[in-house]
Amino acid sequence: MKNTKPYYAVIFTSLQSENTEGYSEMANQMEVLAKQQEGFLGIESARSDLGITVSYWESLDAIKNWKQHNDHLIAQQKGRKDWYTYYKVRICKVEREYEFTKDN
Amino acid sequence: MKNTKPYYAVIFTSLQSENTEGYSEMANQMEVLAKQQEGFLGIESARSDLGITVSYWESLDAIKNWKQHNDHLIAQQKGRKDWYTYYKVRICKVEREYEFTKDN
Repeated sequence: MKNTKPYYAVIFTSLQSENTEGYSEMANQMEVLAKQQEGFLGIESARSDLGITVSYWESLDAIKNWKQHNDHLIAQQKGRKDWYTYYKVRICKVEREYEFTKDN
Repeated sequence: MKNTKPYYAVIFTSLQSENTEGYSEMANQMEVLAKQQEGFLGIESARSDLGITVSYWESLDAIKNWKQHNDHLIAQQKGRKDWYTYYKVRICKVEREYEFTKDN
Protein backbone atom coordinates (compact mmCIF):
# COMPACT_ATOMS: atom_id res chain seq x y z
CA MET A 1 0.00 0.00 0.00
CA LYS A 2 1.32 3.44 -0.92
CA ASN A 3 2.24 5.65 1.98
CA THR A 4 0.30 8.72 0.88
CA LYS A 5 -1.20 10.99 3.55
CA PRO A 6 -3.84 12.06 4.20
CA TYR A 7 -5.92 9.25 2.84
CA TYR A 8 -9.37 7.82 3.36
CA ALA A 9 -10.86 4.54 4.56
CA VAL A 10 -14.29 3.16 3.70
CA ILE A 11 -15.45 0.77 6.43
CA PHE A 12 -18.12 -1.56 5.06
CA THR A 13 -19.76 -3.82 7.68
CA SER A 14 -22.42 -6.31 6.63
CA LEU A 15 -24.65 -9.17 7.63
CA GLN A 16 -25.39 -11.72 4.93
CA SER A 17 -28.74 -13.28 4.18
CA GLU A 18 -29.03 -17.05 3.72
CA ASN A 19 -28.96 -16.63 -0.05
CA THR A 20 -25.28 -16.17 -0.93
CA GLU A 21 -25.49 -17.66 -4.43
CA GLY A 22 -23.18 -15.75 -6.73
CA TYR A 23 -21.82 -13.63 -3.90
CA SER A 24 -18.19 -14.84 -3.91
CA GLU A 25 -17.82 -14.42 -7.66
CA MET A 26 -19.22 -10.89 -7.50
CA ALA A 27 -17.07 -10.00 -4.48
CA ASN A 28 -13.98 -11.16 -6.34
CA GLN A 29 -14.95 -9.26 -9.49
CA MET A 30 -15.55 -6.10 -7.47
CA GLU A 31 -12.18 -6.42 -5.77
CA VAL A 32 -10.42 -6.77 -9.12
CA LEU A 33 -12.34 -3.79 -10.49
CA ALA A 34 -11.75 -1.64 -7.39
CA LYS A 35 -8.00 -2.17 -7.75
CA GLN A 36 -8.16 -0.70 -11.25
CA GLN A 37 -9.75 2.55 -10.09
CA GLU A 38 -7.92 5.85 -9.92
CA GLY A 39 -6.97 6.67 -6.35
CA PHE A 40 -7.31 3.11 -5.02
CA LEU A 41 -4.74 2.30 -2.30
CA GLY A 42 -5.71 -1.07 -0.79
CA ILE A 43 -8.43 -3.38 0.48
CA GLU A 44 -8.72 -5.72 3.49
CA SER A 45 -11.54 -8.12 4.35
CA ALA A 46 -12.56 -10.52 7.10
CA ARG A 47 -15.79 -12.30 7.92
CA SER A 48 -17.05 -14.01 11.05
CA ASP A 49 -20.79 -13.54 11.56
CA LEU A 50 -20.22 -9.95 10.68
CA GLY A 51 -18.25 -9.11 7.55
CA ILE A 52 -15.86 -6.17 7.58
CA THR A 53 -14.23 -4.84 4.43
CA VAL A 54 -12.06 -1.76 4.58
CA SER A 55 -10.91 -0.10 1.37
CA TYR A 56 -8.40 2.73 1.24
CA TRP A 57 -8.46 5.66 -1.16
CA GLU A 58 -6.47 8.77 -1.99
CA SER A 59 -9.45 11.14 -1.94
CA LEU A 60 -13.17 11.54 -1.35
CA ASP A 61 -13.58 11.97 -5.11
CA ALA A 62 -12.02 8.57 -5.74
CA ILE A 63 -14.51 7.03 -3.27
CA LYS A 64 -17.43 8.80 -4.95
CA ASN A 65 -16.33 7.67 -8.41
CA TRP A 66 -16.07 4.07 -7.24
CA LYS A 67 -19.47 4.23 -5.58
CA GLN A 68 -20.97 5.39 -8.88
CA HIS A 69 -19.09 3.01 -11.17
CA ASN A 70 -21.67 1.26 -13.33
CA ASP A 71 -20.64 -2.35 -12.61
CA HIS A 72 -20.38 -1.50 -8.94
CA LEU A 73 -23.90 -0.03 -8.95
CA ILE A 74 -25.20 -3.32 -10.34
CA ALA A 75 -23.36 -5.23 -7.60
CA GLN A 76 -24.79 -2.90 -4.93
CA GLN A 77 -28.31 -3.43 -6.24
CA LYS A 78 -27.85 -7.20 -6.26
CA GLY A 79 -26.42 -7.02 -2.73
CA ARG A 80 -29.49 -5.20 -1.42
CA LYS A 81 -31.85 -7.54 -3.27
CA ASP A 82 -30.23 -10.88 -2.38
CA TRP A 83 -27.10 -11.02 -0.28
CA TYR A 84 -27.33 -8.58 2.61
CA THR A 85 -29.85 -8.16 5.39
CA TYR A 86 -27.86 -5.20 6.69
CA TYR A 87 -24.88 -3.11 5.83
CA LYS A 88 -23.32 0.11 6.95
CA VAL A 89 -20.80 2.27 5.15
CA ARG A 90 -18.57 4.72 6.99
CA ILE A 91 -16.34 7.09 5.08
CA CYS A 92 -13.38 8.10 7.23
CA LYS A 93 -10.28 10.24 7.07
CA VAL A 94 -7.22 8.42 8.36
CA GLU A 95 -5.62 10.84 10.79
CA ARG A 96 -2.82 8.73 12.22
CA GLU A 97 -1.43 5.24 11.90
CA TYR A 98 1.28 2.98 13.28
CA GLU A 99 2.20 -0.64 12.91
CA PHE A 100 4.08 -3.53 14.45
CA THR A 101 5.98 -6.26 12.66
CA LYS A 102 7.54 -9.09 14.60
CA ASP A 103 11.29 -9.63 14.28
CA ASN A 104 12.06 -13.24 13.54
CA MET B 1 -24.47 2.61 19.01
CA LYS B 2 -25.12 6.25 19.82
CA ASN B 3 -25.60 8.52 16.87
CA THR B 4 -23.12 11.22 17.90
CA LYS B 5 -21.20 13.07 15.20
CA PRO B 6 -18.38 13.59 14.56
CA TYR B 7 -16.88 10.45 15.99
CA TYR B 8 -13.78 8.37 15.50
CA ALA B 9 -12.95 4.84 14.38
CA VAL B 10 -9.86 2.84 15.27
CA ILE B 11 -9.18 0.22 12.61
CA PHE B 12 -7.00 -2.55 14.02
CA THR B 13 -5.86 -5.13 11.46
CA SER B 14 -3.71 -8.06 12.56
CA LEU B 15 -2.07 -11.34 11.61
CA GLN B 16 -1.82 -13.92 14.38
CA SER B 17 1.17 -16.09 15.17
CA GLU B 18 0.73 -19.83 15.70
CA ASN B 19 0.73 -19.31 19.45
CA THR B 20 -2.77 -18.14 20.31
CA GLU B 21 -2.86 -19.58 23.84
CA GLY B 22 -4.75 -17.20 26.09
CA TYR B 23 -5.68 -14.93 23.22
CA SER B 24 -9.47 -15.42 23.25
CA GLU B 25 -9.76 -14.85 26.98
CA MET B 26 -7.71 -11.67 26.77
CA ALA B 27 -9.64 -10.43 23.71
CA ASN B 28 -12.91 -10.96 25.59
CA GLN B 29 -11.58 -9.21 28.69
CA MET B 30 -10.38 -6.26 26.63
CA GLU B 31 -13.76 -5.96 24.92
CA VAL B 32 -15.56 -5.90 28.27
CA LEU B 33 -13.09 -3.32 29.58
CA ALA B 34 -13.26 -1.15 26.44
CA LYS B 35 -17.03 -0.95 26.79
CA GLN B 36 -16.59 0.53 30.27
CA GLN B 37 -14.40 3.39 29.05
CA GLU B 38 -15.57 6.98 28.81
CA GLY B 39 -16.33 7.89 25.21
CA PHE B 40 -16.70 4.31 23.96
CA LEU B 41 -19.38 3.96 21.27
CA GLY B 42 -19.09 0.45 19.83
CA ILE B 43 -16.86 -2.37 18.60
CA GLU B 44 -17.03 -4.78 15.65
CA SER B 45 -14.73 -7.70 14.86
CA ALA B 46 -14.19 -10.30 12.16
CA ARG B 47 -11.36 -12.70 11.39
CA SER B 48 -10.47 -14.68 8.27
CA ASP B 49 -6.71 -14.96 7.77
CA LEU B 50 -6.57 -11.29 8.59
CA GLY B 51 -8.34 -10.04 11.68
CA ILE B 52 -10.12 -6.69 11.59
CA THR B 53 -11.46 -5.01 14.72
CA VAL B 54 -12.99 -1.57 14.49
CA SER B 55 -13.81 0.34 17.66
CA TYR B 56 -15.72 3.62 17.71
CA TRP B 57 -15.08 6.52 20.07
CA GLU B 58 -16.44 9.98 20.83
CA SER B 59 -13.06 11.72 20.73
CA LEU B 60 -9.33 11.38 20.13
CA ASP B 61 -8.84 11.81 23.89
CA ALA B 62 -11.03 8.77 24.59
CA ILE B 63 -8.89 6.74 22.15
CA LYS B 64 -5.68 7.95 23.80
CA ASN B 65 -6.97 7.12 27.28
CA TRP B 66 -7.92 3.62 26.19
CA LYS B 67 -4.55 3.08 24.52
CA GLN B 68 -2.85 4.00 27.79
CA HIS B 69 -5.15 2.07 30.14
CA ASN B 70 -2.95 -0.10 32.35
CA ASP B 71 -4.66 -3.46 31.70
CA HIS B 72 -4.76 -2.65 28.00
CA LEU B 73 -1.02 -1.88 28.00
CA ILE B 74 -0.38 -5.33 29.47
CA ALA B 75 -2.55 -6.90 26.75
CA GLN B 76 -0.71 -4.96 24.04
CA GLN B 77 2.65 -6.12 25.36
CA LYS B 78 1.49 -9.74 25.47
CA GLY B 79 0.11 -9.34 21.94
CA ARG B 80 3.46 -8.18 20.59
CA LYS B 81 5.34 -10.88 22.49
CA ASP B 82 3.11 -13.87 21.67
CA TRP B 83 0.01 -13.44 19.56
CA TYR B 84 0.69 -11.16 16.62
CA THR B 85 3.22 -11.28 13.84
CA TYR B 86 1.85 -8.04 12.47
CA TYR B 87 -0.68 -5.39 13.30
CA LYS B 88 -1.60 -1.96 12.10
CA VAL B 89 -3.64 0.70 13.84
CA ARG B 90 -5.36 3.48 11.95
CA ILE B 91 -7.10 6.29 13.81
CA CYS B 92 -9.81 7.79 11.64
CA LYS B 93 -12.43 10.49 11.75
CA VAL B 94 -15.79 9.27 10.48
CA GLU B 95 -16.89 11.90 7.99
CA ARG B 96 -20.05 10.35 6.60
CA GLU B 97 -22.10 7.20 6.99
CA TYR B 98 -25.19 5.48 5.66
CA GLU B 99 -26.78 2.11 6.10
CA PHE B 100 -29.18 -0.39 4.62
CA THR B 101 -31.58 -2.69 6.48
CA LYS B 102 -33.66 -5.19 4.58
CA ASP B 103 -37.43 -5.02 4.91
CA ASN B 104 -38.85 -8.39 5.74
